[in-house]
Amino acid sequence: MRNFTYKNPTKILFGENQIQNLENEIPRDAKVLILYGGGSIKKNGVYDQVKEALKNHTTEEFGGIPANPEYAVLVEALKCIKEKEITYLLAVGGGSVIDGTKFLAAAALYPGEPWEILTKHVRTLEGQALPFASVLTLPATGSEMNSGYVISRRETKQKLSSGGPGLFPQFSILDPEVIRSIPRRQLINGLTDSYMHVMEQYITYPVGAMLQDRFAESILQTLQELAPKILAEEFDLVAAGDFMWCCTMALNGLIQQGVPGDWAVHAMGHELTAYFGIDHAVTLAIIAPSHYKYNLESKKEKLAQYAERAWGIKDGNTEEKALQGIQKMEEFFHSLGIKTKLSEHTPGFAGTAEKVEANFTNRGLLGIGEYKSLTPSDAKAIVEMSY
Amino acid sequence: MRNFTYKNPTKILFGENQIQNLENEIPRDAKVLILYGGGSIKKNGVYDQVKEALKNHTTEEFGGIPANPEYAVLVEALKCIKEKEITYLLAVGGGSVIDGTKFLAAAALYPGEPWEILTKHVRTLEGQALPFASVLTLPATGSEMNSGYVISRRETKQKLSSGGPGLFPQFSILDPEVIRSIPRRQLINGLTDSYMHVMEQYITYPVGAMLQDRFAESILQTLQELAPKILAEEFDLVAAGDFMWCCTMALNGLIQQGVPGDWAVHAMGHELTAYFGIDHAVTLAIIAPSHYKYNLESKKEKLAQYAERAWGIKDGNTEEKALQGIQKMEEFFHSLGIKTKLSEHTPGFAGTAEKVEANFTNRGLLGIGEYKSLTPSDAKAIVEMSY
Repeated sequence: MRNFTYKNPTKILFGENQIQNLENEIPRDAKVLILYGGGSIKKNGVYDQVKEALKNHTTEEFGGIPANPEYAVLVEALKCIKEKEITYLLAVGGGSVIDGTKFLAAAALYPGEPWEILTKHVRTLEGQALPFASVLTLPATGSEMNSGYVISRRETKQKLSSGGPGLFPQFSILDPEVIRSIPRRQLINGLTDSYMHVMEQYITYPVGAMLQDRFAESILQTLQELAPKILAEEFDLVAAGDFMWCCTMALNGLIQQGVPGDWAVHAMGHELTAYFGIDHAVTLAIIAPSHYKYNLESKKEKLAQYAERAWGIKDGNTEEKALQGIQKMEEFFHSLGIKTKLSEHTPGFAGTAEKVEANFTNRGLLGIGEYKSLTPSDAKAIVEMSY
Repeated sequence: MRNFTYKNPTKILFGENQIQNLENEIPRDAKVLILYGGGSIKKNGVYDQVKEALKNHTTEEFGGIPANPEYAVLVEALKCIKEKEITYLLAVGGGSVIDGTKFLAAAALYPGEPWEILTKHVRTLEGQALPFASVLTLPATGSEMNSGYVISRRETKQKLSSGGPGLFPQFSILDPEVIRSIPRRQLINGLTDSYMHVMEQYITYPVGAMLQDRFAESILQTLQELAPKILAEEFDLVAAGDFMWCCTMALNGLIQQGVPGDWAVHAMGHELTAYFGIDHAVTLAIIAPSHYKYNLESKKEKLAQYAERAWGIKDGNTEEKALQGIQKMEEFFHSLGIKTKLSEHTPGFAGTAEKVEANFTNRGLLGIGEYKSLTPSDAKAIVEMSY
């Protein structure tokens, strides 16, 4: 495997009734800003639990952080942080709220124009951000235990990412009870999103990282087994806990150490969200089968290994197994109720491939994938295969 | 799964030529004490690399920390730390040197008699220890990425453990190149030790922790696949890296989150080391088969799962599969060249079971195992089965 440097200092408080520990985890003299999204936390009881736990702290609130956290909204939050002399941020929400909070933690101590952090790819080092923590209410992105984030800016039509070792949450509370009230569509998205996070770090060229491979397969197999339980009518708290932990482990950095990453599926998927508003996770399920078929030659060894280990495929040569693996993956997405063809989501799919090609060219995305070798024209071909 | 709290802030620098990064990882104004064991690092080039990397630092040295780090030796090191006003400890060695260094890091800031830390089970909190780091030269114990340690004191015939969140190494350097010069016997012990670390956290009663189970199985399967490569005549750097990472992941806390731990095999094994000087890892291979057979009723579900997933056993009912799993494990130890019967190691085995029973009773070890329900008389029966 490759050389790597790995450090993940986030403290995880996992399980029922962990929210009450906010009281002890956040310094008593902190001036806390509680950040949240559209208000679902006021319906599912999480808000009340957070307020109760922090009743002896000085707290302010900032709600309304949208999915794909919007810069214009975050600028308002930043004003609030400065005016109220906030010293600690608490994200109560899913990946969007946590990502927005990471940006704010960095922006609060950044001397320049906040948007520069993203356009100039400023890495936030330890000590260069306000301390912050999270109460996770929607498992999917792993943001609760990593140091990266993505911010959108409608005004300039940009969606940019940054991060750095100073942006790990100090702690994150993972209470699987929150899953009880998550709408089915978001559960499906969470299962798909975390599955594809793993695939992007696993379906690459082999580097002999035996344990990382097996850990990746572990998360995939667990998600496969969990899916019917998570989507069942009756809430299953044990399964909910396993699901939550899978989502965190899928993107907390562990399985990516020492191995190449692909992330081309994400790059192409983002375009489909931008053009058609298709849910992020669904775009990954649309692009992935075509991406793996198109790149079969370079990815077939890992795809065959995936077919064997995650699905028990025994017959066929490497290429045949690889193709069966892709089919199994697509069937898995179908079992979640996801339609994996772009034409099933929009009648206006014609021309999408050309648009992706042009956009990648304009944005300088001239080589993507684990070899950085997929050109805009390759992307065009892959998106076309996904129609 | 159970509730858990998990934080592991150790930074891992993995791969070839990472030792040179000591220069940047240790603060330039630190007064560093380099601690090591019997001097193998002077033969394999690690000592020279460390000295070269720290040539612009102020360093002192303390060698001679023995296997089962001895309190009397560490007291000498502690004097050196105080006399030379050391501010940073660097362990260069295996588990014993790192464990000894953890104790010293705590003892250096402890206001009372150092031995009290162990007898009074003082947990060392963040900020209550000197900062320290490690360069790992012998993969086995996971001490390079956890916060526990074990110290022996010949004078009182005690072997006591302690730890705490303040005793994670700040960083650990894992260069698999060091494995090239490790004697075969120590490689066998490392493979066995890490394998049994996983088994002690995995072969328990099921709690529905699906991902922890699969991660445990991942490490076991990887060690099984690696063993022939690690013990082969020709050095295999890629396999060496995988082996090193398995040993770290086996006991860095990750797979134990939310699940019960057993550790009865370790408790009984320690006795065999104390009476006969049998290598620690070998004692685990002697005790484990009997322990699992004796506790078949409570452990059979996990043992059957182990047989199925780690060894591909398909036939038989739960109990039959469980027994086949135990047999496969014992065969694995045999494949490493380990004799798994006590009588194969010492002609003086008679009476050992009674001695273990009496010792456990005297030491107040009245209930061990994941249920804390195995009495000294159970231990006697298990040790007898291991003759």
